[in-house]
Amino acid sequence: MDSKDLILQRSEEAKQKYLPHLSADPVIFGFDQNELKVLLLKMNYRKQWLLPGGYVQKDEDLEDAVARILKNRVGVTDVYLEQFGVFGKKNRSEFYFEDFDETLFNKQRFVTIGYYALYNPDRFSLVADELSETCEWVYLSRLPDIELAMDHREIINQALLTLREKISYKPIGYNLLPEKFTLSELQKLYEVILGKTLNRGNFYRKIKNMGILTKLDESRRGGAHKAPDLYSFNEENYLKALENGLNNW
Amino acid sequence: MDSKDLILQRSEEAKQKYLPHLSADPVIFGFDQNELKVLLLKMNYRKQWLLPGGYVQKDEDLEDAVARILKNRVGVTDVYLEQFGVFGKKNRSEFYFEDFDETLFNKQRFVTIGYYALYNPDRFSLVADELSETCEWVYLSRLPDIELAMDHREIINQALLTLREKISYKPIGYNLLPEKFTLSELQKLYEVILGKTLNRGNFYRKIKNMGILTKLDESRRGGAHKAPDLYSFNEENYLKALENGLNNW
Repeated sequence: MDSKDLILQRSEEAKQKYLPHLSADPVIFGFDQNELKVLLLKMNYRKQWLLPGGYVQKDEDLEDAVARILKNRVGVTDVYLEQFGVFGKKNRSEFYFEDFDETLFNKQRFVTIGYYALYNPDRFSLVADELSETCEWVYLSRLPDIELAMDHREIINQALLTLREKISYKPIGYNLLPEKFTLSELQKLYEVILGKTLNRGNFYRKIKNMGILTKLDESRRGGAHKAPDLYSFNEENYLKALENGLNNW
Repeated sequence: MDSKDLILQRSEEAKQKYLPHLSADPVIFGFDQNELKVLLLKMNYRKQWLLPGGYVQKDEDLEDAVARILKNRVGVTDVYLEQFGVFGKKNRSEFYFEDFDETLFNKQRFVTIGYYALYNPDRFSLVADELSETCEWVYLSRLPDIELAMDHREIINQALLTLREKISYKPIGYNLLPEKFTLSELQKLYEVILGKTLNRGNFYRKIKNMGILTKLDESRRGGAHKAPDLYSFNEENYLKALENGLNNW
């Protein structure tokens, strides 16, 4: 079946199954090789990249919808996502399916709810859905060079801003770094998310003041320089900081 | 016209005008007499209190919808609102209009988008819409004693949590306090939002470290005790802190 026929067939099912006008778009960031990536699909139709989003079933809680969508579209399960914004400008989605007539489910106005998460890409085995040619982790540095559908570039940017704001008052790194890591590895993670270089002394002082690290009795061997100290996260303090924020009054 | 007839009449208009399944609920907090209040309507139908929410027109940007809804329902204009969450559990809204049949616009499933803001209530002259008996600022301390419609209690709680989290990394107080204020007045504002007493020494030190205050060459006169120093916000630094957050890396 060609890609347009499949969309048409799915549209008829969609009218029965889904709420009109409402969609959800998950922005899953990955941290890998000291860079940030985002999980994208390339649909057969129009060959543009887009977030692995979808619709909400008539009889389904919103949070369940996002989990189901991720599983069905890219094979990703067991991720914890946070809402970060709703995108509701008129005409944000209406023109994407321009080759179809107005009866297509996908062609109506959609207000979309943005979710984001940050994971180590190694956790997942990706499986693209039938509608898509591929799903891939795309480096953020590559985004300027690719075509993104609808307002998905804006949605990704907004998710990134939210992540940046979040690390000013919540810790980050658990589930992303290996169990034992050096302070310079942790600093690299912060630099990548913030998109800027940090002063090493300031970073070390601030991160130690959070009280979320345990210094281990070992150091990283094998380098030409003095072996750097290894740290691990203090799970209890980390979770407490995650819940209460870092800057309590 | 009785309250049920009016709802029925409006329902027919609503089907023409609004997107189905999607609503917006603004949570406007007020700070007054050292207490927090929330702006609520009491509808003639069922006499329960609820947030001054409404629906999104088919050809209207989401952000414009919220402004229009606030104007029409409570006469409030020129407020800057922030999204803080989407409430999408099935059956969250379906049973409220139980006296009507399924054809009522209002009785379908609604996913609602929560917005919040914090203002000085003196700024506004409230005007309740035709559907409502009254609109009022209700002290948060009174909420346990009143009946709130649907999941609006949960929405208000979530907005309050967002506000609490926000003041761990953004300044607050501008547009709420008089031009000249004492540190203990500012502390009171923080205590009310956080719902707990703060240590005076710690608070003074932290708030001064933010660099958002200008100490004035005057003090508050008239009390029995030593006249306390007066402060004003340094607008430039305040706006910078608002934009960048207080805990830059």
